[in-house]
Amino acid sequence: MAKIKSGQNVTKKDTIVATAAALFREKGYAASSMRDLADKVGVEAASLYNHIKSKSEILQDICFTVANRFINHLEKVESSNVSAIEKIETILRFHIHQMIHNYEEVYVSDREWKHLEDPYLSNFQTTRRTYRKRLASIIEEGIKSKEIKNIDAPTAVLIMLHAVAGIESWHRSTQKIDADELEKNMVLIMVEGLKK
Amino acid sequence: MAKIKSGQNVTKKDTIVATAAALFREKGYAASSMRDLADKVGVEAASLYNHIKSKSEILQDICFTVANRFINHLEKVESSNVSAIEKIETILRFHIHQMIHNYEEVYVSDREWKHLEDPYLSNFQTTRRTYRKRLASIIEEGIKSKEIKNIDAPTAVLIMLHAVAGIESWHRSTQKIDADELEKNMVLIMVEGLKK
Repeated sequence: MAKIKSGQNVTKKDTIVATAAALFREKGYAASSMRDLADKVGVEAASLYNHIKSKSEILQDICFTVANRFINHLEKVESSNVSAIEKIETILRFHIHQMIHNYEEVYVSDREWKHLEDPYLSNFQTTRRTYRKRLASIIEEGIKSKEIKNIDAPTAVLIMLHAVAGIESWHRSTQKIDADELEKNMVLIMVEGLKK
Repeated sequence: MAKIKSGQNVTKKDTIVATAAALFREKGYAASSMRDLADKVGVEAASLYNHIKSKSEILQDICFTVANRFINHLEKVESSNVSAIEKIETILRFHIHQMIHNYEEVYVSDREWKHLEDPYLSNFQTTRRTYRKRLASIIEEGIKSKEIKNIDAPTAVLIMLHAVAGIESWHRSTQKIDADELEKNMVLIMVEGLKK
């Protein structure tokens, strides 16, 4: 019985975090209250605290879950035996998928992390910086092997990551092309834009 | 004397709006209070109201000033007698310059407009949508004239605008390339990415 109960708690926490991601995306973290969250979950505000300690803890949960997922993927790509431009394409497609299918939490992790508190804030900033440097290294690799044109690698990373963040507009758009078309077009413009 | 006073008032309002743009960019509109703003301007909170009616009015001022500047530029480009890809390049360079040199207000207009209140909110959304459609039309024009590859024009607009918004990361970065290099690289990747 205790085990089932703990299982239920985990599920409830997941629901709270997922609902919070949607709320933070919509209203922004700073403007979202625990009362707003309770309303959206459909419980009393007080009962949220059976599952989570604070609004801040929810943001940490969202940001670090997303960050870990991207880092794990990057590690697999780095150790794969393909060309630099293929690595970049794989990473780009992964970012696009994440932004399409895990939109709320990826958006919040990308836009609202500034509201993290230390030590989480510093840790997250370092993680972001390191992630971008590792992407830039792959681009540098591609420049050396003449697959990629001679560009500033950090600028290329910046363009790539922010263009993907633009899928936000796609989500909001009333006349969307389908997700596969979106992916195809983004790859067509950006990977081709990088190629020598 | 009255005239000079009114001149001083205008200047004070400009200072308030510029300071507010920096504050909203840093903390977000929702989390910024009039007291924060007064502290940053270096006056008593009450005296802000001699110059502006409300926090909301400041946001309107920022958003519509920026929007008008972009629309005026777009109109000039649309009526210019150059190829579609050159129009796109001119617009892209304008966006980059604005994001570099009028960073705070452009950032706030791009990220915090959701906090506008109606009728301004609806008006601003329509303006944004129309602006993007007009950019997409230029890209369609370039696709027809075979200057631009056969892509989904709204997706290309989305990539372009969001990549430029990425200059936010450039501003925050401690090891920046210089502004001209940034512009050169962005044009190289994106305009080349569009070209057939």
